[in-house]
Amino acid sequence: MQTPLPNGGLRLQLRLRHGTKLVMGPGRADLLMHIAATGSIAAAGREMSMSYKRAWTLVEEMNAHFNPPLVEAVKGGVGGGGARLSAQGQAVLAAYRALEAATRTAGETFLAQIEAALQVPPDPD
Amino acid sequence: MQTPLPNGGLRLQLRLRHGTKLVMGPGRADLLMHIAATGSIAAAGREMSMSYKRAWTLVEEMNAHFNPPLVEAVKGGVGGGGARLSAQGQAVLAAYRALEAATRTAGETFLAQIEAALQVPPDPD
Repeated sequence: MQTPLPNGGLRLQLRLRHGTKLVMGPGRADLLMHIAATGSIAAAGREMSMSYKRAWTLVEEMNAHFNPPLVEAVKGGVGGGGARLSAQGQAVLAAYRALEAATRTAGETFLAQIEAALQVPPDPD
Repeated sequence: MQTPLPNGGLRLQLRLRHGTKLVMGPGRADLLMHIAATGSIAAAGREMSMSYKRAWTLVEEMNAHFNPPLVEAVKGGVGGGGARLSAQGQAVLAAYRALEAATRTAGETFLAQIEAALQVPPDPD
């Protein structure tokens, strides 16, 4: 699952690169969101139909790009530990979502122009 | 070559999807720009280190997504014909560039927040 920015039938996706490396994008932001919701990298991956290995790899990559890291381990508890967003993780996710919203608002006219130029009427999806 | 949106060291890339299909993104926009500049799909592809086949495929995909098509053939001339952007192609490219600029301006604060959270200082690239 990815969170699109609905703008009629056009969906906008923002990717942030540092040099050539992707540091944040729709899939990573959604993974962070699901980690925050589930308290578990594995459960977050499952909600996105992503393998355990893939979810862990993405978290490791994100953690390597940011300082302090975005996702931190939680020791103990009923489930024997889990994961949560660090304060930094919450802030970066919030900034990315705000960037999406700002783009949708500031770019509304241009998105509508491109949408109007499409061959077929947009799907309702 | 892709045209990044410099925002310090973070580069922002916008992808527009119609359903699951990519209809416009940094590579496609740059291809349109190079077609406009060179008057040739082949030459535009060469400037982007893209194969002739790849450039043609991208143009065919873009033309299928939009109506009227974005790229049109030019008959005759010294070089035996070439390609150019249709009025629609010019309008869609301009709207995409304006969307990039609007995002950079409206999202400046959020981009700066994410950039400040990066592990290492951004490369000057």
